[in-house]
Amino acid sequence: MKLYNYFRSSASFRVRIALELKGLSYDYVPVHLVKNEQLAPAFAAISPERLVPLLEVEGRHLSQSLAIIEYLDETHPEPALLPADPLGRARVRALAQDIACEIHPLNNLRVLRYLVHQMSVSEEAKNAWYRHWVESGLEAVERQLAGSAATGAYCHGDAPTLADCVLVPQIFNAQRFDCRLDHVPTVMRVFDHCMQHPAFQAAQPSSCPDAQS
Amino acid sequence: MKLYNYFRSSASFRVRIALELKGLSYDYVPVHLVKNEQLAPAFAAISPERLVPLLEVEGRHLSQSLAIIEYLDETHPEPALLPADPLGRARVRALAQDIACEIHPLNNLRVLRYLVHQMSVSEEAKNAWYRHWVESGLEAVERQLAGSAATGAYCHGDAPTLADCVLVPQIFNAQRFDCRLDHVPTVMRVFDHCMQHPAFQAAQPSSCPDAQS
Repeated sequence: MKLYNYFRSSASFRVRIALELKGLSYDYVPVHLVKNEQLAPAFAAISPERLVPLLEVEGRHLSQSLAIIEYLDETHPEPALLPADPLGRARVRALAQDIACEIHPLNNLRVLRYLVHQMSVSEEAKNAWYRHWVESGLEAVERQLAGSAATGAYCHGDAPTLADCVLVPQIFNAQRFDCRLDHVPTVMRVFDHCMQHPAFQAAQPSSCPDAQS
Repeated sequence: MKLYNYFRSSASFRVRIALELKGLSYDYVPVHLVKNEQLAPAFAAISPERLVPLLEVEGRHLSQSLAIIEYLDETHPEPALLPADPLGRARVRALAQDIACEIHPLNNLRVLRYLVHQMSVSEEAKNAWYRHWVESGLEAVERQLAGSAATGAYCHGDAPTLADCVLVPQIFNAQRFDCRLDHVPTVMRVFDHCMQHPAFQAAQPSSCPDAQS
């Protein structure tokens, strides 16, 4: 397997965590988003969306981090990243989507660039936008986690799931942009627990070959 | 089953399509987003995210449209909304997420409100923002569909899947906001085919009890 990714892309980070949790080895191919390498012809030819992460497997190129993680979970079932019961699976997927569909899309690089270049938004207003969606979005996740008996040491029970693969990169982003996090104690308890796990450590941006590039 | 939803919410529309495709009956509970009914105490008590759609089933409240549709597909397998093979499933999920994670989050009501109220963006700039993400996002979907032999009468083969449940509401939004669509002929061919199916017809906003409210 070959993973096209960027050390700071939080969607790439999600997939790296899943690969580490499953103990799957892969070739790391950096695609530098700030240098717009995702638009270069060689990458564009294999990525209709011009997005990382992209997983090359079985002669195909799979896109979208959550779809890739579900594929990995179906083809390498152990350890499972989704619970066995449909209600539990729905809860884990909803938690992942609370971040992947409600928070992260508003704050990725091309959106911040549009605000600055097309809308002439100030640095201050751009940072306020970033923090607004992270802080209010994580508040919704906090209510989900704090209000449910299904929450354990991790987002769902006492083993890592898809939800943790998505939560951890979002907290890295939040910390990088100085977002408030004292209002989400359950989120932070789960985050701290995840970061004690070697898979989350190994997948983090600073451990990537292209970190600092 | 009880579905809390809003006729114009495209995430609600996705779930209505899935319910219709599966032939499942449900109680329709309108939550008027423009009137902020999602923030009312009675709804907030069952929805930690304050979002529609919300599916009440087995004494639980399930959130996030894609998670709800996967739940419906696992608990009511016929007709299947995901292919049987992992690569096919990954493709269908990625297509759904190309819309649900890349286009729709940028254009929902609370984001447009933030642009206008917090950033003092003009009506014209707000509409340009809307069209930019829809038109560029659908271009990526077009490349996915036009470039793959797996595309059939629908997004994936000749039966409707999760991807079609997500595509159709996005096109309704695009048409409502006068987005350009002549650059995505494969997307529009699939959309037109979906709209000949009675399930997509029955689920559309104008068929909802709260339409025009």
